[in-house]
Amino acid sequence: MEVKFNNLNNTDSFKKLASLPVPDIKKIITPERVSSFSIKAGNGIDYNYSAKCADTSVLEALQMLSDEQQAIAKYKKVLSGEIMNKGEKRMVLHHYTRGAFGIDGREVKERGDFYKTEIKRVYDFADKIHRGVIKGSTGAKFDTAVQIGIGGSDLGPRALYIALKGYMASEGRTPFLYCDFISNVDPDDAADVINRINPESTLFILVSKSGTTQETLANSYLVKNLVKKFSPVTDISRHMIAVTSKESPMASSPDFLDSFYIDDFIGGRYSSTSAVGGVALSLAFGGEVFQDLLDGAHESDMKALENDITKNASLLDAMLGIYERNILGHTAEAVLPYSQALSRFPAHLQQLMMESNGKSVSVNGDRLSYPTCPVIFGEPGTNGQHSFYQQLHQGTDIVPLKFIGFRRSQQLLDAQYEGSSCQKKLNANLAAQITAFAQGQNDENPNKYFAGGRPSDLIAGERLTPRSLGSLLAHYENRTMFQGFIWNINSFDQEGVQLGKKLAGKVLGGNSGNSVLDAYSALLA
Amino acid sequence: MEVKFNNLNNTDSFKKLASLPVPDIKKIITPERVSSFSIKAGNGIDYNYSAKCADTSVLEALQMLSDEQQAIAKYKKVLSGEIMNKGEKRMVLHHYTRGAFGIDGREVKERGDFYKTEIKRVYDFADKIHRGVIKGSTGAKFDTAVQIGIGGSDLGPRALYIALKGYMASEGRTPFLYCDFISNVDPDDAADVINRINPESTLFILVSKSGTTQETLANSYLVKNLVKKFSPVTDISRHMIAVTSKESPMASSPDFLDSFYIDDFIGGRYSSTSAVGGVALSLAFGGEVFQDLLDGAHESDMKALENDITKNASLLDAMLGIYERNILGHTAEAVLPYSQALSRFPAHLQQLMMESNGKSVSVNGDRLSYPTCPVIFGEPGTNGQHSFYQQLHQGTDIVPLKFIGFRRSQQLLDAQYEGSSCQKKLNANLAAQITAFAQGQNDENPNKYFAGGRPSDLIAGERLTPRSLGSLLAHYENRTMFQGFIWNINSFDQEGVQLGKKLAGKVLGGNSGNSVLDAYSALLA
Repeated sequence: MEVKFNNLNNTDSFKKLASLPVPDIKKIITPERVSSFSIKAGNGIDYNYSAKCADTSVLEALQMLSDEQQAIAKYKKVLSGEIMNKGEKRMVLHHYTRGAFGIDGREVKERGDFYKTEIKRVYDFADKIHRGVIKGSTGAKFDTAVQIGIGGSDLGPRALYIALKGYMASEGRTPFLYCDFISNVDPDDAADVINRINPESTLFILVSKSGTTQETLANSYLVKNLVKKFSPVTDISRHMIAVTSKESPMASSPDFLDSFYIDDFIGGRYSSTSAVGGVALSLAFGGEVFQDLLDGAHESDMKALENDITKNASLLDAMLGIYERNILGHTAEAVLPYSQALSRFPAHLQQLMMESNGKSVSVNGDRLSYPTCPVIFGEPGTNGQHSFYQQLHQGTDIVPLKFIGFRRSQQLLDAQYEGSSCQKKLNANLAAQITAFAQGQNDENPNKYFAGGRPSDLIAGERLTPRSLGSLLAHYENRTMFQGFIWNINSFDQEGVQLGKKLAGKVLGGNSGNSVLDAYSALLA
Repeated sequence: MEVKFNNLNNTDSFKKLASLPVPDIKKIITPERVSSFSIKAGNGIDYNYSAKCADTSVLEALQMLSDEQQAIAKYKKVLSGEIMNKGEKRMVLHHYTRGAFGIDGREVKERGDFYKTEIKRVYDFADKIHRGVIKGSTGAKFDTAVQIGIGGSDLGPRALYIALKGYMASEGRTPFLYCDFISNVDPDDAADVINRINPESTLFILVSKSGTTQETLANSYLVKNLVKKFSPVTDISRHMIAVTSKESPMASSPDFLDSFYIDDFIGGRYSSTSAVGGVALSLAFGGEVFQDLLDGAHESDMKALENDITKNASLLDAMLGIYERNILGHTAEAVLPYSQALSRFPAHLQQLMMESNGKSVSVNGDRLSYPTCPVIFGEPGTNGQHSFYQQLHQGTDIVPLKFIGFRRSQQLLDAQYEGSSCQKKLNANLAAQITAFAQGQNDENPNKYFAGGRPSDLIAGERLTPRSLGSLLAHYENRTMFQGFIWNINSFDQEGVQLGKKLAGKVLGGNSGNSVLDAYSALLA
């Protein structure tokens, strides 16, 4: 099946959508809707959209729009290995890392085999580290891994590590290795990490697909210097492994104990389920835990093939976001996990969505006349309630809210206080917020008046486990991809990062000192 | 001098501002402007606004607006102890915690003396802990402090602690005590912290002004249970101190080793320079370091009294933000510190600004017809460059950018790589970004085209020290206050947090289990 690439504002269904009356959340929300406006999304997760600004007419028009923009057909093209990263003329194969090969189309078998082989090599390597078959250069067993990477080589793996370390504790196991991360070229970042680890029992993971990332190479060099200065480790190559592409200058270098490979068909922000996330997570928790995460993601990938938007959580989530952005005119979205383990998940989603869909040009190369990705931000609840929720409730702009919650806590340590557990309090607060945002409150005192009508959705899970985490991750990755199809943009390149790199190179080639202002003046001259 | 409270859209100067042509950043930016559009803000910090969308006409109109809305006169009312938190009928005295009493007006001497006495008590207590005069219940010297608090009792103190711990390392000193923080009612938060500390050498700091904060009390109870279960500490009252108001149920309780006091005239988000931040930071770094921070903040507070906006960094920063929000129509601001030590500073500013100014009602009680606080978000650079900057450069909406940078690194550990240090690379990137956002780039390939004209400002300091950090903090606090005066809103209350609390109480009073969806249905029924 051929697919076509039309701008959103040229579709009939978008015009239809724009002509519909906007539903009033305060009027349509009912207890019945809580159960009927819900999709089973796999791995014990429900996508609940009862508090969204959507009625049957809006949903029908969104279905038409999804069909007219061929969201599912284009997803199938991705899975069958067509060149869907059009600007860079590349395939888009991150789904292959969790086992989705060639659904309804040809399969790029060679690439699928490559990802399988690499992750198997990762599992074997992690197992050798855990069993002490491979030790540090001074004979110490490795107990810490430090990932050196930035952007996609940092935010996803870091968010997932934080999300799972408490799960291990609840299983009566500690992580095999503790993980830490160095990303920023600010030398204080590396100095801070080196201050708190023991280099003798630390394995550094250098992650750069191109093998040329300035921050990562500079940090690797700085780390080598600091380790030499402050520890008895002299042969750091026995403490460093690489995750890179086979064509990179880092590949097969004698500077590394071992190397694991990725390729150009997986973008940084989509690479958490490749060796980029797999090495650190397998070292920390073991290959079995990482495989559970991949299986969870795969289940979500398969559910995302459903054409009916009311049965496809990530597609519906995408379509509702389009409605809020392009019809209702909202300019930001807040991601609000009621789970401390997901404290850095919003930062990962911020990258995923804003780097993928923060674009002004269509895949055909014309400038768009409609807005694309909103600003994405968020912090865990209930923390946010005591911070920026004031503005979400009573500010002048409406910000759609994306809640995430789990029935059980992750670590299963809790206490009853004043008649209820902390976990119950957490979820009571979440339920209260959804209701308060949707319904508002009349009050004669204008300071105590809440307009309500503020839309939210909720991903409700049983518990945050490797499988449900994989499912969550894939949900948002697929939502992002679907939104790119609707906006008719390329979600898989990032040309917007190039100009800054070029100008930074110009500064570093010049004679300025460390002063920002001098460098900035020089660039303007 | 009497002050009047007019809405922004009723002022003549706002109408004047709206009538001016919008300057084109690409055309007005020059190397000369880099030096002339700059204000010395104290403590080695410059506020540079050369890349803002502002020319002489805009600045003149902003000066008129500041005068017409009586920004400085209202600030003086704050300092002289008038009831400037009108809704709650309270004085606003956080400036007193750093020594600004009664400038050009009466002084609330009794309150000033109270804050001085309390912080002196904090310093003495910290000193006794450091010298081992006060020890844990099993005889261990305290080496860790864990602050249990949420919102203003968490975000500011945490951001400041993270900002200063590397500074101590560079001075050849380690912190006296390491700090950790528990905020979220999610029991996984407390479990995680208890997993990584030794209760025998840990002092818990319970912080709640009212003494009734649900999350904080529940966490204190959970912590007591976990400590009892997993450690030999039986008398936890010898491991717990309180920061609260004298009228709270927590005051003078036998459950605490000691108590330190705040009062109702300091809002949570403005309380970092009171005992709320002072206890943890003095325990960690000593009273002298905290006093340096207070002195730095005080210097900024005094500079903020200047009427001329081109000589008052926090006032000009406020006015430029008003222009961008209310004339140019931008809906978000990004805070981008090029300093890893400031990694949680954006989260603190998010609370400070959004909770203070995310309001729709004037101080007179009428609904406003113009937008107030934008969405505030941010992450450190260069990390953000590999994440959401794609959208900032090439997305469809313009987001004004607030950069922060320092000439020297904090920890002074660095290495030369490919001809330049990491610190130089960091600042080269910052200079490159300001230039790229302002100037953009023409290119025939639409994917490589950058529109430019994207405004930013820069706070450039010599190095992140306790003094310059205090100055930064006060800068943004005063900016927030000034914006509230211009928008004619009360920046010192937070009625928007109440409805959620009420509904959560309703859930907890009912029979629902831990399921969010059940509780949510029940609330709607």
